[in-house]
Amino acid sequence: MKALQYRTVGAAPEVVTVPDPEPGPGQVLLKVTAAGVCHSDIAVMSWPAENFPYELPLTLGHEGVGTVAGLGAGVSGFEEGDSVAVYGPWGCGTCANCAHGKENYCLRADELGIRPPGLGAPGSMAEYMIVDDARHLVPINGLDPVATVPLTDAGLTPYHAIKRSLPKLVPGSTAVVIGTGGLGHVAIQLLRAMTAARVIALDVSEDKLALARTVGAHEAILSNAEAAGKVKELTGGRGAEAVFDFVGVQPTVDTAGAIAAIEGAVTIVGIGGGTLPVGFGQQNFEVSVTAPYWGSRGELIEVLDLARAGAVSVHTETYSLDDAPLAYERLHDGKINGRAVILPNG
Amino acid sequence: MKALQYRTVGAAPEVVTVPDPEPGPGQVLLKVTAAGVCHSDIAVMSWPAENFPYELPLTLGHEGVGTVAGLGAGVSGFEEGDSVAVYGPWGCGTCANCAHGKENYCLRADELGIRPPGLGAPGSMAEYMIVDDARHLVPINGLDPVATVPLTDAGLTPYHAIKRSLPKLVPGSTAVVIGTGGLGHVAIQLLRAMTAARVIALDVSEDKLALARTVGAHEAILSNAEAAGKVKELTGGRGAEAVFDFVGVQPTVDTAGAIAAIEGAVTIVGIGGGTLPVGFGQQNFEVSVTAPYWGSRGELIEVLDLARAGAVSVHTETYSLDDAPLAYERLHDGKINGRAVILPNG
Amino acid sequence: MKALQYRTVGAAPEVVTVPDPEPGPGQVLLKVTAAGVCHSDIAVMSWPAENFPYELPLTLGHEGVGTVAGLGAGVSGFEEGDSVAVYGPWGCGTCANCAHGKENYCLRADELGIRPPGLGAPGSMAEYMIVDDARHLVPINGLDPVATVPLTDAGLTPYHAIKRSLPKLVPGSTAVVIGTGGLGHVAIQLLRAMTAARVIALDVSEDKLALARTVGAHEAILSNAEAAGKVKELTGGRGAEAVFDFVGVQPTVDTAGAIAAIEGAVTIVGIGGGTLPVGFGQQNFEVSVTAPYWGSRGELIEVLDLARAGAVSVHTETYSLDDAPLAYERLHDGKINGRAVILPNG
Amino acid sequence: MKALQYRTVGAAPEVVTVPDPEPGPGQVLLKVTAAGVCHSDIAVMSWPAENFPYELPLTLGHEGVGTVAGLGAGVSGFEEGDSVAVYGPWGCGTCANCAHGKENYCLRADELGIRPPGLGAPGSMAEYMIVDDARHLVPINGLDPVATVPLTDAGLTPYHAIKRSLPKLVPGSTAVVIGTGGLGHVAIQLLRAMTAARVIALDVSEDKLALARTVGAHEAILSNAEAAGKVKELTGGRGAEAVFDFVGVQPTVDTAGAIAAIEGAVTIVGIGGGTLPVGFGQQNFEVSVTAPYWGSRGELIEVLDLARAGAVSVHTETYSLDDAPLAYERLHDGKINGRAVILPNG
Repeated sequence: MKALQYRTVGAAPEVVTVPDPEPGPGQVLLKVTAAGVCHSDIAVMSWPAENFPYELPLTLGHEGVGTVAGLGAGVSGFEEGDSVAVYGPWGCGTCANCAHGKENYCLRADELGIRPPGLGAPGSMAEYMIVDDARHLVPINGLDPVATVPLTDAGLTPYHAIKRSLPKLVPGSTAVVIGTGGLGHVAIQLLRAMTAARVIALDVSEDKLALARTVGAHEAILSNAEAAGKVKELTGGRGAEAVFDFVGVQPTVDTAGAIAAIEGAVTIVGIGGGTLPVGFGQQNFEVSVTAPYWGSRGELIEVLDLARAGAVSVHTETYSLDDAPLAYERLHDGKINGRAVILPNG
Repeated sequence: MKALQYRTVGAAPEVVTVPDPEPGPGQVLLKVTAAGVCHSDIAVMSWPAENFPYELPLTLGHEGVGTVAGLGAGVSGFEEGDSVAVYGPWGCGTCANCAHGKENYCLRADELGIRPPGLGAPGSMAEYMIVDDARHLVPINGLDPVATVPLTDAGLTPYHAIKRSLPKLVPGSTAVVIGTGGLGHVAIQLLRAMTAARVIALDVSEDKLALARTVGAHEAILSNAEAAGKVKELTGGRGAEAVFDFVGVQPTVDTAGAIAAIEGAVTIVGIGGGTLPVGFGQQNFEVSVTAPYWGSRGELIEVLDLARAGAVSVHTETYSLDDAPLAYERLHDGKINGRAVILPNG
Repeated sequence: MKALQYRTVGAAPEVVTVPDPEPGPGQVLLKVTAAGVCHSDIAVMSWPAENFPYELPLTLGHEGVGTVAGLGAGVSGFEEGDSVAVYGPWGCGTCANCAHGKENYCLRADELGIRPPGLGAPGSMAEYMIVDDARHLVPINGLDPVATVPLTDAGLTPYHAIKRSLPKLVPGSTAVVIGTGGLGHVAIQLLRAMTAARVIALDVSEDKLALARTVGAHEAILSNAEAAGKVKELTGGRGAEAVFDFVGVQPTVDTAGAIAAIEGAVTIVGIGGGTLPVGFGQQNFEVSVTAPYWGSRGELIEVLDLARAGAVSVHTETYSLDDAPLAYERLHDGKINGRAVILPNG
Repeated sequence: MKALQYRTVGAAPEVVTVPDPEPGPGQVLLKVTAAGVCHSDIAVMSWPAENFPYELPLTLGHEGVGTVAGLGAGVSGFEEGDSVAVYGPWGCGTCANCAHGKENYCLRADELGIRPPGLGAPGSMAEYMIVDDARHLVPINGLDPVATVPLTDAGLTPYHAIKRSLPKLVPGSTAVVIGTGGLGHVAIQLLRAMTAARVIALDVSEDKLALARTVGAHEAILSNAEAAGKVKELTGGRGAEAVFDFVGVQPTVDTAGAIAAIEGAVTIVGIGGGTLPVGFGQQNFEVSVTAPYWGSRGELIEVLDLARAGAVSVHTETYSLDDAPLAYERLHDGKINGRAVILPNG
């Protein structure tokens, strides 16, 4: 079959022919319908050769939707032809965190050498992929594969961040979304669907602010040195009960810290390298700051339920597997509008 | 001043002239702008003379909005002219429950003889009323008094019921509202504003189901012997994660128990006298059943914030204080459309 | 190998020889070290032939601890020789509830024909047993198998009941345990280890009350018509914030309802067939009543961690597999002191 | 009456004679039984004259226990002679935070000029003090005033910090207490009483570690460059689910960040000026870091209930009001063993 592989550190990914995979015991073979292109792949491909954590060649793709094409020995609960999304942050399934479905926080993944597809294990950018265990599949039940595939990361990641802040997002509260791109523009939709909070979006161009308003932000503000003051003003001096920073560079992280209300939650999602110094007197009382990673199995089920209810949609543009290198090139150049999706069998 | 009083057990309430009240130390005098007419007043007036719990005559009205007209000695934080809503379930302010603002569950109210306005203490159906402590006031900040006054009970009561079920109302879940009248039609709006759950409404006439759909119910079903089966069908056999019964008669309570999903929450709000026998094997696993009362101070603030965000509206019809007896008559006869509001100074 | 089987409805279980089991793909073979004898087995063996839900013969035993003796194809994360406890309430592993480890509340178990070991699937009362998936194993890491095996049900079930009530069990609160036998005397220990609540135990004999005090109850009271009054008195009229009824007959359930404080939680664990009628005015405000079933995977891990910390111990008496029928006889006759444990390879 | 006042910036506090206070409407007059000496007073007295936030002279003392000696007009629910503790972080009583009893996070205190006793308002280091509202009193019901008074700050502050981390402190988890002095040695006791977590204490001398073990720490480790490694080792590499830093200097804050487990909570309580830079890759996944302030009214009630249950005790040494300056001197010099308590009427 054809697969998109990162083969040499520093080189562009290539479409190559590899042997067709066979599902071992407990595994599931998917014929891939849609595979999402993610900024973090570009980050991975920028890492230097020394300490590069994965074996090469690596078939890319940590967002995947496919059709069950083969069941390994002992698999039950699924049938050939089922259309499913792949839960990406695979864990051992057994430790205290995995027992709650929080495989993204598996305590034994490193020890056991377990890696997500596309980030160590062979990913979704191929005609077929192997999913290591049926518990990593969520039936999509009538959802469109292309519209759904970005939700497995670009939907699940903000969903997790928002869900942990829900108790703070009571009526009368304010949520701020910094960065209204892939994850951020999903976050705005999630906040509107799940809470009665006022949503304020921050980004650096009027174009992006217009998009933020279109997907539901009550207010949209340029992300600059005045932004913190404006958020304070809009909230009567109180600040925001939850701030989600999908950029994560130093200036956005500083803004996030400055606008968080008493007991507010700052969630740094973007991997821009910024850090917020937390201490007594640095922020409002009891502002809590954290940087989570991806989400749980149960949360992915809930994200797809939200999509089924029509509460979230992602703008996508599609590419054939042969054009996948082009999709990465365009993403790198900032030319993708929304999310690029590869159709390996399209 | 004029006041509407219940003076003789079994008789209709009368408009009478009573001395103008003066605010004592710590108290606040309100010029009443709007006072809500509630079914529970009719229940009170149906109680027999023996064991009647309140002293007569009793000025009615446990829903009130007014303008601060006088501050007792030692009151701070409010000024004359402030427009405020009254938090009704007064407590001692000091016990373990009051310390969390749950004065509706005050541990010392009985011992100290503390009663809500209109339900023991002189109520809002008068030109002026005394509020015993400034902490029982919530500024309405620009909200319309007539639209706001029903929220202090008909809004706060369903809000409290829903808020305690929020952790169950994740995306993909179902909430059922039984009875779409005063409280129920507010509940539908609250559920839509605060959750991504699917909302199914049950009531006994097509008229009421039409209203339910108008205010946001995804589905509306006749409340009869087939209703439970239909809810099961709509939820793929799973049932509802939260059921709110605003009627509370035996048939509705039975339906509520039958349609609750595993770990579902059944909240009996209506005081129709029905009871649900809870035990192993009687309902789905871990269905929890409860009957709460009114809500907390913090929750009233949140309800008014929701109204300010435009998320909830109550249909009202207004009456002068002189016509208040007529309003009760019409309510008793089922002729009020939405909520009747008295304008004591209108 | 030898196994204890229930072969004919109404007859006593028998020790028979059956073929040695082989682990299929994804399964794990355990050499059973200890198997717990439970009242619910006796309930199962009292059910009539019509509608008997399981296929016969049935190898009994839903509490099991063993040593990994064989790994089916595709199993990782465990090695031969590992000593493990079995999580009993098996589910599909994939549905919304299983995704949170709540396999006891699996949404697809019925549809897929999944049954717990000893309650449909072959159980632990045999020299060897098959566990369907490695995720149902919890390493016991140095715990004694005999002391540990009752914790998989008689520990996990009260643990789950208590854990859901923890937010109510703040300092100053009261927890009541009705029935201080197998589950109840574990519950008292769990409450003492995990909360600062005052623990009041109720049972029908002075012997049992003495045991209750020994394992940590602050107060122990005879469970009779005066019990509710005494609990009210001990709590200054307030009642108990959490009541756990491990008997579940009508009189205990009635007591539970009568002593629950405002916002108290009543958990009916015992399957004695009692039901508590819940409705407005029937209990204190917002008392919630529920009947849960077993516990989650994550909770079993926590129970074993508690045992490892020395916080819980179960009195046990051991029997060989050949004497297992005798153990059931003695349990039926009320002669077991604590929990009977079978040593199939002892 | 006599009072201990801070009169001149930079000078030592002095015992002076001031007019006897009279309770205004809504206020309560206390005859002070015990007043706690706190490190934060020394911090206040080290602040420079410019920007000094309080008016001078200032009667010190933000921890107070007394006997009701006079009720202002309109006060109910208390009687002369009641022995009560004072909740110190006074707020407006009405805002969204105060409505939940979180007056420590009052949204209007600054605007309305409300200050805690001893930190702006006249404090407890006098024969009599005025409490602005009866809701700031908690009956001590038989507790010893001297043993109780430190709990109003040195007990309440760690209690609040611990309470917000309780959901993480499941059986099998680890809590680390850095700094085992006044607040820290209470924290150890609270953790033992309220959770089944393993408690590891860190401090800089063997003496303090011995005290930590005496009050319940499972492990006690020198707080130095090796401490983080030792905590990792004791937790099998996992780290601590909750870390409470009662020192808050840069080295302790760094240790706290290094030892927090995935999803761990770091609470910086000590005001040593250290800050922890939080960002993706800086700590384990989803470590959350926060710096709270004091606690809520409901929490103070719970702390006193814990003391009544015998679960927490503070070592105290007592001083007359005339010797209060000496107590501050000794505290400044690190010579106080436990907590110094002034007896203004002793």
